[in-house]
Amino acid sequence: MTIRESILPTRSDIRAAQDRLDHVAVRTPLLRFPVLDERVGATVLVKPENLQRTGSFKFRGAYNRLSLIPEEKRKAGVVACSSGNHAQGIAEAARLFSMPATIVMPSDAPAIKLKRTRDFGARVVTYDRATEDREAIAARICADTGGTFVHPFDDPGVIAGQGTVGAEIAAQSRDQGLVPDMVIACTGGGGLSSGIALALQSDLPECVFHTSEPAGFDDYRRSLTSGHREKNGALGGSVCDALLSETPGALGFRILRACAGEGYVVSDSQALEAVAFAFTELKLVVEPGGAVALAALLSGQADVAGKIVSVVLTGGNIDPDVLSRALDT
Amino acid sequence: MTIRESILPTRSDIRAAQDRLDHVAVRTPLLRFPVLDERVGATVLVKPENLQRTGSFKFRGAYNRLSLIPEEKRKAGVVACSSGNHAQGIAEAARLFSMPATIVMPSDAPAIKLKRTRDFGARVVTYDRATEDREAIAARICADTGGTFVHPFDDPGVIAGQGTVGAEIAAQSRDQGLVPDMVIACTGGGGLSSGIALALQSDLPECVFHTSEPAGFDDYRRSLTSGHREKNGALGGSVCDALLSETPGALGFRILRACAGEGYVVSDSQALEAVAFAFTELKLVVEPGGAVALAALLSGQADVAGKIVSVVLTGGNIDPDVLSRALDT
Repeated sequence: MTIRESILPTRSDIRAAQDRLDHVAVRTPLLRFPVLDERVGATVLVKPENLQRTGSFKFRGAYNRLSLIPEEKRKAGVVACSSGNHAQGIAEAARLFSMPATIVMPSDAPAIKLKRTRDFGARVVTYDRATEDREAIAARICADTGGTFVHPFDDPGVIAGQGTVGAEIAAQSRDQGLVPDMVIACTGGGGLSSGIALALQSDLPECVFHTSEPAGFDDYRRSLTSGHREKNGALGGSVCDALLSETPGALGFRILRACAGEGYVVSDSQALEAVAFAFTELKLVVEPGGAVALAALLSGQADVAGKIVSVVLTGGNIDPDVLSRALDT
Repeated sequence: MTIRESILPTRSDIRAAQDRLDHVAVRTPLLRFPVLDERVGATVLVKPENLQRTGSFKFRGAYNRLSLIPEEKRKAGVVACSSGNHAQGIAEAARLFSMPATIVMPSDAPAIKLKRTRDFGARVVTYDRATEDREAIAARICADTGGTFVHPFDDPGVIAGQGTVGAEIAAQSRDQGLVPDMVIACTGGGGLSSGIALALQSDLPECVFHTSEPAGFDDYRRSLTSGHREKNGALGGSVCDALLSETPGALGFRILRACAGEGYVVSDSQALEAVAFAFTELKLVVEPGGAVALAALLSGQADVAGKIVSVVLTGGNIDPDVLSRALDT
């Protein structure tokens, strides 16, 4: 595996990422929904990254990271491990750079995610979760091909790319004459969350960033309390498949430890209720892992009364069966 | 029934509606989706009115029309006939004006639409489609209560409200440095379509407006060809329940006859394919009647290659069963 750079990204890395992503990534809008404001008694600014290219914010970090690969290394391609949104983000970014992409995916990944990743032009290498080590497979492919491994979150180039979401929230809320008191984002490994927090520190210094995690996978909340990177007890079992990382990323933890506010934790049923609310009332397709920040609001866990709060909907790659389950609850 | 005003609305009526709707209606964004641009070989600007208050553009016309009711007549309330989006738009606008609203709805309307209309605070009076005349029921309620009847499309105040969609498309495309060659909207009675066409005549005079209708309900396309208001052969039977008017509105026809380009007609299965594309690729919840303009693009019927084209997604109040049907096709 390549050695991970340990230098923390800065606001100027995010600015450079904004320039690279301009007219390539979608500058998603900052939406208002009167029905949501009335429901939670706050002014809510929704950042719908489900409307991003590939259906999640992951494209931002992937594209920014690939742009940092030197020209002469590009033809050797890119390698990633993912069963979900990072796979699609990398595959699409690689397509735009005309780079070969190899994604190591579990053989039991949802057929739709395997198909979408292939549709974006990536080669998919499957492995058996029970008997094989995906990181070893990725390392072997990198050794064989000279390809560049891209970690889904513990990488300064990836974090800077995701941080463009925070920079956009700051600029777009200002355009609307509103200054958010708080921003809440769905948090897995923390690439997006730490990127947003970095942007806010510079662009909206009074605004507090909050993580939101699924129950059983609240490693960030516990780690930010204890001061150490805590591990989750399980590796699966939540409906929020996009957020099931084992422990906070080293870089993300260092950034969020310095600036994040209280962390929220929502149950699977609260996440599914938020998916159903987004479908029925907001007319947005959001996956469970992309709805946990909204769920922190709707469940009443986040104290937002009278405040201006921005929530990030991080992804919309939901299986229709899961949506049906959400609508039946 | 009240006498319909026959004076055509103008751009200044739309401007007045914009002022009234400011900070009340949602100024929906003008979205870009690289996946859609690549698919149809054009620059597509999506106007998602499914993200509008109540889930469709109908709120704009309803709120603007109610604002024209003199103060002293407001307490007598508003009366409308609708089984769908107009009902919800009127109910929500009446709630904001603290006016009583009575909506005459068929007893076999989808339970979800009856429920949503009541949830917005309206009184619902049901009738039997087979044996009762809804217009007679509405006229009786107006006579009894002194309430104001609001037609879903053949009303200058309603058309001016819907025209704000066209004014926004013109302003937002300019902000993005793009000038649309054409705008396509889903067309039923023609309130929205004629309002948009009016706004474009003034704000984007080189841009051509096109209707898009479901097969069997292409009364506008046929009327614009023949020069007379043609009737549809059936009153039901299409999955596009939002677009099943009998014949073009008198006002809408006069406006569109003067300026509309070729009309498009899409099959039910093309409309459902567009619903599925919006769900899977755009992450937007769109109902079949709200997807026929998109269907005109995706089906290849509209010749858009190399052009800049704006399509209006008019509504998102879809029954989950219909969405399942769309995703299974």
